[in-house]
Amino acid sequence: MSTYENYVAQFGQFKKIDAFAYLDYLKSHQDEPRKHGKVVLVTADTPLKASRGEGKTTTSIALIDALRSRGIDAAAVLRQPSMGITAAGSKGGASGGGKASLTHPELVDWGLCGEMAAIAAAQNLLVSFAEKAIDDGSLDTIAVPRVSETPSRSLRRIRVDEGKNDVSERVVLTPTCELMQIVVLSRSMQEIGTRVSDMVAGEKDGKPVRFGEFIDLWRITNILTEAVKPAYTETMQGSPVYVHCGPFANVSIGIPSLVSVELACARHDVVIVEAGYGTDAGAQKWLDIAAREYGAQWPSAAIVVTRASTWRDNPDLRWRYPFHVHRLESLGIPAFPLINLWDGEDGQIPDLRRQASELEFREPIMGNLFRDGGEALVNQLDGFVEALRGDGASAVPETHKGMDILEDVRWIADSAYGVPAERVVMRDGFSESLEAACALCRSLGHDLNDYAVVAVKSPATMTDDDTAPEGSRSVTLKKVEVHAGAGLVQVNLTSSLTTPMPKIV
Amino acid sequence: MSTYENYVAQFGQFKKIDAFAYLDYLKSHQDEPRKHGKVVLVTADTPLKASRGEGKTTTSIALIDALRSRGIDAAAVLRQPSMGITAAGSKGGASGGGKASLTHPELVDWGLCGEMAAIAAAQNLLVSFAEKAIDDGSLDTIAVPRVSETPSRSLRRIRVDEGKNDVSERVVLTPTCELMQIVVLSRSMQEIGTRVSDMVAGEKDGKPVRFGEFIDLWRITNILTEAVKPAYTETMQGSPVYVHCGPFANVSIGIPSLVSVELACARHDVVIVEAGYGTDAGAQKWLDIAAREYGAQWPSAAIVVTRASTWRDNPDLRWRYPFHVHRLESLGIPAFPLINLWDGEDGQIPDLRRQASELEFREPIMGNLFRDGGEALVNQLDGFVEALRGDGASAVPETHKGMDILEDVRWIADSAYGVPAERVVMRDGFSESLEAACALCRSLGHDLNDYAVVAVKSPATMTDDDTAPEGSRSVTLKKVEVHAGAGLVQVNLTSSLTTPMPKIV
Repeated sequence: MSTYENYVAQFGQFKKIDAFAYLDYLKSHQDEPRKHGKVVLVTADTPLKASRGEGKTTTSIALIDALRSRGIDAAAVLRQPSMGITAAGSKGGASGGGKASLTHPELVDWGLCGEMAAIAAAQNLLVSFAEKAIDDGSLDTIAVPRVSETPSRSLRRIRVDEGKNDVSERVVLTPTCELMQIVVLSRSMQEIGTRVSDMVAGEKDGKPVRFGEFIDLWRITNILTEAVKPAYTETMQGSPVYVHCGPFANVSIGIPSLVSVELACARHDVVIVEAGYGTDAGAQKWLDIAAREYGAQWPSAAIVVTRASTWRDNPDLRWRYPFHVHRLESLGIPAFPLINLWDGEDGQIPDLRRQASELEFREPIMGNLFRDGGEALVNQLDGFVEALRGDGASAVPETHKGMDILEDVRWIADSAYGVPAERVVMRDGFSESLEAACALCRSLGHDLNDYAVVAVKSPATMTDDDTAPEGSRSVTLKKVEVHAGAGLVQVNLTSSLTTPMPKIV
Repeated sequence: MSTYENYVAQFGQFKKIDAFAYLDYLKSHQDEPRKHGKVVLVTADTPLKASRGEGKTTTSIALIDALRSRGIDAAAVLRQPSMGITAAGSKGGASGGGKASLTHPELVDWGLCGEMAAIAAAQNLLVSFAEKAIDDGSLDTIAVPRVSETPSRSLRRIRVDEGKNDVSERVVLTPTCELMQIVVLSRSMQEIGTRVSDMVAGEKDGKPVRFGEFIDLWRITNILTEAVKPAYTETMQGSPVYVHCGPFANVSIGIPSLVSVELACARHDVVIVEAGYGTDAGAQKWLDIAAREYGAQWPSAAIVVTRASTWRDNPDLRWRYPFHVHRLESLGIPAFPLINLWDGEDGQIPDLRRQASELEFREPIMGNLFRDGGEALVNQLDGFVEALRGDGASAVPETHKGMDILEDVRWIADSAYGVPAERVVMRDGFSESLEAACALCRSLGHDLNDYAVVAVKSPATMTDDDTAPEGSRSVTLKKVEVHAGAGLVQVNLTSSLTTPMPKIV
């Protein structure tokens, strides 16, 4: 039995891996055999409003099946799909499809091994602790939202303690909460404990109060015991897939847990990491938050998925796909366009290829991945495999820690959305919200500028109006929210709405 | 490999058993080796208000350890503890203690394999479906409560859809919900589906509407895939323990799932089944609902647990323990008093023995089970083992199906609480509530009198005032609620309050 197997337990159709302990073991046993896999980011075109996804998960699955059939030890790391979104019926799940599927997609879609439910229970228990603190007189207000594993439109705004204190609250889907971010970013249960203690519970006499000041931390960590372990499953072709954590990319950080990626890198040569929504969402967050600020690996390459129709059919939005591809290239990340064809679109290949060539893309990879799975890709990957042969990724750009938050946001708008600083505008109230966040941080003995910025926006847009001409696109800043435990500052931007609690359809 | 092992999957520290499929297999393969275990009910004295439990789980664990050390193949079937109650801190969990413990009590207490969380998600998804039906105009009101895995006092009364429809709602802990009852009582996923379809979602134009009329049932059953499988674990001594479902005994049916007990009976000779709270709660429900109406086994014996202090220290409540013991004996169930001693109480044994003898109890079994585990019991079980040697349990009493509900409630008050019909009184509004329930059933094409009665009350009382003299004890009937899917009619009774949503302490 290999050392690794000591950290693996069967969980029904899945395996669960004690990644914290295994990675710790590797750290203290430098001569233990391990791999040093290269991270490849799978990202996508910004989805259209009506889109049900470009097919990032389908692509990730087909891609590792194809790489493995070429003799390359590739694995994928996926986020756990939100059961809430699956239950809502607005997406079909997020576990691939057709020939590019997981072995037990229905179990992955409908709760996996209970990880998300445990995070929900723990976040809600934090709210209960805050409630108790209010009863005890040590807290006046509660800053953390309740979460739900199932969507319900009427929970968007609720009033609790009806007839007594009548407190207005929001309920959001589990993937959006700060505790989910903490589990994604932490490398030990101790770090989770420290970060939970640093979360702001609410205010007392106008001053922020941290959870660490009054909770029984062990009750939270007990609930999370199994939830912090990544799940392992396989594609229908037997390729290895790790699934862990599911923060939304538009209102949160949209990436799988850092330890699940590090675990996969210790086990495989090529690690395909799926980040949520478009390059402006999950990929931006992998690069600018996970890699730049939290020690995650800078990707050696990226696959940028689109559908022919998403890329092409709306002339006013056609700029977005090349913008993403070129942006990644400009960062030194070889970016491979991948066009996920649907039935009846095979005939469009020559046109798409010409268009890609005009845009000076690398040779695009095209195929009907639902229909053909990895077989569609296997002969198109020479360039991609070649790109991975290099010495590894370039150095991670320098931290933005200490950079003025407003400057950091403007930098994101410019680099990730193509909107220059002068067209990043502040809505009424934004300055006050920013000042309040600064004051809160000062109260905590922190500097807001040390936090990493999380852009909160609609998944389908990156500017106030993506259909506007380039020279008039703008980004409106709306409000600031501090996630002190996660070390993040959330900035709501653009005029479109986020929907952290959908209704079912 | 035995046939059984085909139905067993490892789930981390637990095994999960596909009891539906295994029991089906046994039914269609009559020559497959199996056992026909006898059910023994572990029940208890009615707890005092301040009690943190008499020790039923501790007793169940010590008992099987003792029986197995005598060479008897005994197993226990426990309910999954409510994480909400554990999180609330009002109980220390429900997985035994000291030498009478499970191997992984912290995992059992804090979510097991996600079963309760999945039931919560499915019940909440039903509420979301009802909400959608309201949006679609096919429903006017919602009859099912939301549930939470974590307690929060401010959720007792909430107002959802604030600022729009402003609907008042309650949130209750997961173990109290109808879907939990359905999972407990069903013997196949198909039966669960039928029962969920029969649940009343709410009303349209004053008529009840069933969930079956508008939901995607597969979304509910997908969530429940793993939750319907009992978990298997062991005591510290290696004795087999099945854990499944956790309905509260005071506001619901308080017993483990029927299939978990039937599974254990197919595998072991003696099956210790733990029912919740006092004999007036979980035991009454096992006998009068599970056995009488749902085909569960009539127990061959009962162990009635108390603490010396619970039994004795309040002179006004001292009648309850002998009442329970004698009641079970009068039903033909050999009832063994078991006194769970605490530290410093060893010296009280002679007194307790004398008192038991005066009350014409069977020889009481006594021991400090936390300190000594099964060893405390092993030499005291001759009478108990002898009682199990008989031909098996007497015939199950006849169904009450068709009996007038009011007569049935009076019968429960008389037989289970010692209050005769003339002192069962109706509070203002009860008749109207009963009439509404009758009308609802007629609308559904059912007869309310065909449903089994679930008494809903405080765990610590069975009459309006248990400290009153026998001749003046009464039971007040408060309201009626139909659980058409589960086939149950809930009747709130006695003047004390139930607390389906505690606060944390």
